[in-house]
Amino acid sequence: MFVEKPVVTFMDELASSAPAPGGGSAAALVAATGAALVSMVANLTVGKKKYANVQDDVQRILTRSETLRQKCLDLLEGDVAAYTQVSVAYKMRRDTEEQKKARGMAIQKALKQATAVPMELAEACVGILNLCPESAEKGNVRAVSDVGVGALAAEAALRAAALNVLINLGSIKDEAFVQNERARLDALLDGKAQLKEQILKDVEAKL
Amino acid sequence: MFVEKPVVTFMDELASSAPAPGGGSAAALVAATGAALVSMVANLTVGKKKYANVQDDVQRILTRSETLRQKCLDLLEGDVAAYTQVSVAYKMRRDTEEQKKARGMAIQKALKQATAVPMELAEACVGILNLCPESAEKGNVRAVSDVGVGALAAEAALRAAALNVLINLGSIKDEAFVQNERARLDALLDGKAQLKEQILKDVEAKL
Repeated sequence: MFVEKPVVTFMDELASSAPAPGGGSAAALVAATGAALVSMVANLTVGKKKYANVQDDVQRILTRSETLRQKCLDLLEGDVAAYTQVSVAYKMRRDTEEQKKARGMAIQKALKQATAVPMELAEACVGILNLCPESAEKGNVRAVSDVGVGALAAEAALRAAALNVLINLGSIKDEAFVQNERARLDALLDGKAQLKEQILKDVEAKL
Repeated sequence: MFVEKPVVTFMDELASSAPAPGGGSAAALVAATGAALVSMVANLTVGKKKYANVQDDVQRILTRSETLRQKCLDLLEGDVAAYTQVSVAYKMRRDTEEQKKARGMAIQKALKQATAVPMELAEACVGILNLCPESAEKGNVRAVSDVGVGALAAEAALRAAALNVLINLGSIKDEAFVQNERARLDALLDGKAQLKEQILKDVEAKL
């Protein structure tokens, strides 16, 4: 498990030419960092007298941000597994027509699965971003800048995940699948850069 | 050392209400991820026949991105140390006028030092971003999306570092210092959102 490795080792392996971890896992790590910051702000708010009237809301945010954090860390590993499957498919024999056909089908299947990982990550990033406005409003004001850092990480990871979806789609031949996934991705991206800027404005107003 | 901890433990501690690591270290982690991706693309390019004519340029990028990656990981630890110094200063006794004065001076000194860490991080992020256009142009085209992910991480970390500078400046009474640091920060931020978008355009054109 890559997440069991020390941060410094993970970074060394990311920086190396080794096939994993790659950009997909990096995006998942950035997303997990965003979710962790939303959780941190919630954890600095629950149980505090000053914030007694928002305890239920903040507890709900915390439950959700922790689910999303775990999801991102799962997708960090999931990206490595999906990438391995694609590599295995590309290495299949192609001496006979039958082998060529089987290889082509295996590649296409693996690419579709490899598209699902960054798409799920993009969904998780939108989930994290959507927690930020309420976190900035109701969370411990002394940690409000951390909501801003969380939103920045989540939005960057969203766009990074989108890039990773797009690379895979470029090699997928099923046009209906490609169109459908592009539409899903566009819907996930829509308005999120503006949402991030609005969160940052709200945060800066409270600094 | 926080970077010696497993990724999952680092994330647990970030998400918790413990005073460290906080948003400053999170920003440094995201920045290090960006630098690592620039290094990865360079490592996937050096020694490759197809890229023989850009070996010197890519080697220069790699040397610089590795320096910046180490710098970001150092600043991850540095943020914890600086934050600790501020906390220590705030906890100083203030029973007498003399103690109050000593405490106030210690707080101001610690806050100035705590401002230097995210400012250095912002500078490192600009350094990472500045490596991306040439990486997208000359690096292994099969990894070009990773340059995009790196640029997204570096730009998000730059803006996160800026937030962390601004919080500290809000409590610093030396107006000349505050003005000077604001000007430095503005210069670092200037044009970087556009630079990131241009890098992403260049990357998407090569996908």
